[in-house]
Amino acid sequence: MSFDDVTRLAQQRGFFFKSADSYPNSPAGFWDYGPLGVALRNNYLRLWRHMIVKRDRMLEIDGSQIMPKAVFEASGHLSGFTDPFVKCGKCGSVFRPDKRIEDKTGKQVPEKLKDSEYDELMAKAGVKCLKCGAPLSGTGRFNMMFRVGIGPAQEEAYLRPETCQSIFVDIPLIFKTQRVKLPLGVAQVGRSFRNEIAPRQGLLRLRELNQAEIEVFFDPAAAEAPRFASLQSDELNFLRPDGSASTSKVSQAVAEGLVPSALAGYYLALLVRFYSAAGLPGERLRFRVLSEEDRAFYSKAAYDLEVNLSVGWLELVACNYRGDYDLSRHSAASGTDFTFDDAGRKVLPHVFELSMGIDRSVYAIIEASLRSEGERRVLGLRPYLAPVTAGVFPLVNKDGLQEAAGELFASLQEGSDVFYDESGSIGRRYARADEAGVPCCITVDYDTLKDGTVTLRNRDDRSQERVLSSALAERLSSLTRLPRSR
Amino acid sequence: MSFDDVTRLAQQRGFFFKSADSYPNSPAGFWDYGPLGVALRNNYLRLWRHMIVKRDRMLEIDGSQIMPKAVFEASGHLSGFTDPFVKCGKCGSVFRPDKRIEDKTGKQVPEKLKDSEYDELMAKAGVKCLKCGAPLSGTGRFNMMFRVGIGPAQEEAYLRPETCQSIFVDIPLIFKTQRVKLPLGVAQVGRSFRNEIAPRQGLLRLRELNQAEIEVFFDPAAAEAPRFASLQSDELNFLRPDGSASTSKVSQAVAEGLVPSALAGYYLALLVRFYSAAGLPGERLRFRVLSEEDRAFYSKAAYDLEVNLSVGWLELVACNYRGDYDLSRHSAASGTDFTFDDAGRKVLPHVFELSMGIDRSVYAIIEASLRSEGERRVLGLRPYLAPVTAGVFPLVNKDGLQEAAGELFASLQEGSDVFYDESGSIGRRYARADEAGVPCCITVDYDTLKDGTVTLRNRDDRSQERVLSSALAERLSSLTRLPRSR
Repeated sequence: MSFDDVTRLAQQRGFFFKSADSYPNSPAGFWDYGPLGVALRNNYLRLWRHMIVKRDRMLEIDGSQIMPKAVFEASGHLSGFTDPFVKCGKCGSVFRPDKRIEDKTGKQVPEKLKDSEYDELMAKAGVKCLKCGAPLSGTGRFNMMFRVGIGPAQEEAYLRPETCQSIFVDIPLIFKTQRVKLPLGVAQVGRSFRNEIAPRQGLLRLRELNQAEIEVFFDPAAAEAPRFASLQSDELNFLRPDGSASTSKVSQAVAEGLVPSALAGYYLALLVRFYSAAGLPGERLRFRVLSEEDRAFYSKAAYDLEVNLSVGWLELVACNYRGDYDLSRHSAASGTDFTFDDAGRKVLPHVFELSMGIDRSVYAIIEASLRSEGERRVLGLRPYLAPVTAGVFPLVNKDGLQEAAGELFASLQEGSDVFYDESGSIGRRYARADEAGVPCCITVDYDTLKDGTVTLRNRDDRSQERVLSSALAERLSSLTRLPRSR
Repeated sequence: MSFDDVTRLAQQRGFFFKSADSYPNSPAGFWDYGPLGVALRNNYLRLWRHMIVKRDRMLEIDGSQIMPKAVFEASGHLSGFTDPFVKCGKCGSVFRPDKRIEDKTGKQVPEKLKDSEYDELMAKAGVKCLKCGAPLSGTGRFNMMFRVGIGPAQEEAYLRPETCQSIFVDIPLIFKTQRVKLPLGVAQVGRSFRNEIAPRQGLLRLRELNQAEIEVFFDPAAAEAPRFASLQSDELNFLRPDGSASTSKVSQAVAEGLVPSALAGYYLALLVRFYSAAGLPGERLRFRVLSEEDRAFYSKAAYDLEVNLSVGWLELVACNYRGDYDLSRHSAASGTDFTFDDAGRKVLPHVFELSMGIDRSVYAIIEASLRSEGERRVLGLRPYLAPVTAGVFPLVNKDGLQEAAGELFASLQEGSDVFYDESGSIGRRYARADEAGVPCCITVDYDTLKDGTVTLRNRDDRSQERVLSSALAERLSSLTRLPRSR
């Protein structure tokens, strides 16, 4: 199914809503999670915590989104977090020159061109204003951070463009108050803000986005992963800077230097295990190895974990070996000691980062899980990710079946996420449940009143079986049990 | 223990950090959750979802924090969400006149005075600038919303000052896409922003705050609660506008009109049950009934749920009967139909709101759970709220006890939140665990190697028992089971 089909279904079922959609001309790049979306996202994050954060005894924090100017001076965002833009000299409409050139020529524009290079390419391609048709020229720079003013003095501050700055800035307090050793993972789920010039890709390009970031702090003299052996034989797909694709065992990728350390290789492999458990199997995933030109200037190695979808390869996680850039910059700017005391030896840790886009990941899981079977649309989510685990239906609304189904529903509700539905034919109720990704449906019928059994119908193969209703609580609970994390 | 003592311990143990604290002069009113704080807050929200949201089959959404100007024109925040402020004519320092008058006179200043009335009171009390000593006058208004500009055109938008606006604005899409009936609860956990003029109360007065809000939409012709009977005999404490205190059964408070409907009474009682389960028992709680002058102009009835702490009575939840104010305003401003179709009958629902401060609630739970016993400090959190359920310790670090404890730790980690600690005496490890609120500690000793039993030590009464290590997983799991929600 296409991006538009998936987006439409996700809106119809209430996974996502456009923000402030009841108002005309609400700004692009803002989306709300509807009821099914919140549940899917929360289950997704539960899996992430289980398979990565808790597995490796990482610490999780949650920092403020508004941070003072000094933080972003040090991080480099104040000077460098910009996108090129061009304003029509005639009507004032604003565009991204790279996007307009790509639309016109059908060819990808390299990243990080100079402003004058964009102007040359626009002139060559004859790029014109989409609104009034005037030729476009005069590329400038737009800082993508949202500025806010604190208090009546309007003290300069910004909404963070990436959650990780909270982790970096808090690390001295973490070292001081927590009893930790290196390597240490610090995780955070939270919102970031990027004032995109003209976002056009719906859910995939947001001005307000949800990230789950992990910063692994390690001693550069010992970039080992304690549990490397447990996944060193996992196979990973790589797309190299020269355009060639390969599949390598993690140990091999580390040995040949494609990945800079066992620690980095360990986390790349763990990510693939996590996404596989979330319903995006390894064969749909690849690591795009960024060339030196494509990497941020402080980055020593970078890998974009991408998934193959209807829109092409979509980046889900930016994996970045940031060296000591962040800690040394914040240390210098703040005058605070950011080193870790390793039994008397001062270590300024290096950082390997896993920066995950939650909204894109949720979208990718929905698209990858959705299939059409004739008229039937089935959202085949893993049961532990499904917003609702089971529907409880009375076969007909008479003869005490409603009451019996209502009682069963109430008893299951205490321990499981279930819903009750008594409207329409059983077939229509099944179809609605299939579209919402509900793994099983429980129907209370006349036999239930006699022998206490119900029909348990499976979403994926439409098989049905008779089950004692007293066994359902345990059945649903085992269905939603998370996979083992080791 | 005093507010300062509790705040200090919470920082030392990593429940909270001041935001950007490594930088000098970081702005007040911003706090980060540290590792123990994130876990406690997440467990708190799990309990809230269990006892209120899921119990009543509410829907949960998660909306954007940045919303367009039109939303706040309609909500009234653009014109009315202001605090009085006064700027020193000599040195430019800014103050809240009400706070300065209260500091000077020791008496509370009524809310909602006119600017000229503040000036009169300041003159009478001889209020002077705290910085340069000049007399203060010329009260003005400061809008407490943070403004942001979207895109290169800097389209006017704001960070929402209360999460509920997302719910109101999304309600037409919820009615359209979800199969619901009235009364319908819609819940949301998220961040709100209030640009306080000079916040001074640490964790209790934040510029960036976490809220858990519930808006119950109901047909004003039927303000009933389907499950009212289940808690109509619960007793609630009230502080009336005339200053008198009373304790009433919910049914009685509804009958005498102190609470406007069974629906409202039901939710007030449910809140008290929830907080009791969270460790703030009913006798520490009261509902302050707001007088007509103290209520927002659109409010038909309002109750602040307050808890008695070292700082006095602290508001945790604002309960507000908002009538149809929000939906009719947004409907008129957006041109969208906000009515609910009740089998062909158009109903513009009324709203009863439970607006909960998460950060204050977490603070209150920490303070209420903390006790000193001589040198010993114990954080007696309910086990299902505790950030960590158990510590696993080897008695000594030799003779294979470390290995045995490590294996036990790894086996428990898959299903529980446990930590491993082998440093210092057992007594010191117990003491650290007590301060972090860990309900029990498991010690592996020489007998463990012989008969597979461990010592299970209970935080609250310091009792110890021998338990088979094979029984621990189930023991920890039942310890953290949530209380029944009905």
